[in-house]
Amino acid sequence: MHAEILFSALVQNQILLTEKPMISLDFNKNSEGILPAIAQDYKTGEILMLAYINDEAFAKTIETGKAHYWSRSRNKLWLKGESSGHIQEIQDILVDCDLDTVVYKVNQLGGAACHKGYKSCFYRTVQGDELHIQGKKVFDPADVYKK
Amino acid sequence: MHAEILFSALVQNQILLTEKPMISLDFNKNSEGILPAIAQDYKTGEILMLAYINDEAFAKTIETGKAHYWSRSRNKLWLKGESSGHIQEIQDILVDCDLDTVVYKVNQLGGAACHKGYKSCFYRTVQGDELHIQGKKVFDPADVYKK
Repeated sequence: MHAEILFSALVQNQILLTEKPMISLDFNKNSEGILPAIAQDYKTGEILMLAYINDEAFAKTIETGKAHYWSRSRNKLWLKGESSGHIQEIQDILVDCDLDTVVYKVNQLGGAACHKGYKSCFYRTVQGDELHIQGKKVFDPADVYKK
Repeated sequence: MHAEILFSALVQNQILLTEKPMISLDFNKNSEGILPAIAQDYKTGEILMLAYINDEAFAKTIETGKAHYWSRSRNKLWLKGESSGHIQEIQDILVDCDLDTVVYKVNQLGGAACHKGYKSCFYRTVQGDELHIQGKKVFDPADVYKK
């Protein structure tokens, strides 16, 4: 009997998890059905990166507690950190007034979000006519993305 | 003679101002020639809003030190605060690794970026299947946007 109840709970949970999230973002705002998601360090407030989500990526993020995006270059669902191990653990998700942008407040594993080895993808600042690097490299991409 | 030099300087300045900025963002990444720009409170790190820029809006922002965007709904250049007076004074501009997103670090005049009266457009957080309001209203939109 206990097993049955547990099984039933699992089935119900599975149904819940595979359904679209109850929070409906306005994915039709964009012709490609994708919206921007900003990843922000939940402790420091530093903006780490911006990538895109479709409804599947948003649902997977809520379901797993790990930041998922839609890779425009590879045209597929993308678990951030699937290659590098630099998973983003979701601490909070914020939604904007127009339901067309979200903020993922995350705990960035590995200390770096940028595939170029910097903590933040925004490691450069506009100085007059030039870009100056202000971030420090946390890892060497050649080491992290080697096969 | 002084007038001639001044005139020459003005003409040169005008040429400079109407040229595209030397920092080339990858506006071709998007079929509409627009890229996301995130406005972040330069003191607290709070993310205030996300809007879009084209090359003209980016150039105007650098030129004037006031955040400009491209309004997708009105299809025109948009000086943030032109209606509300809630100008965003640029303190710093960050550019990401792929040259396709920027962060405007700003001093938000009027204390609020959101047209709904909240400091940040991201005033709601995902709680299970619902959105909970966590921000406080700074102004009443009816007062600010009245004609």
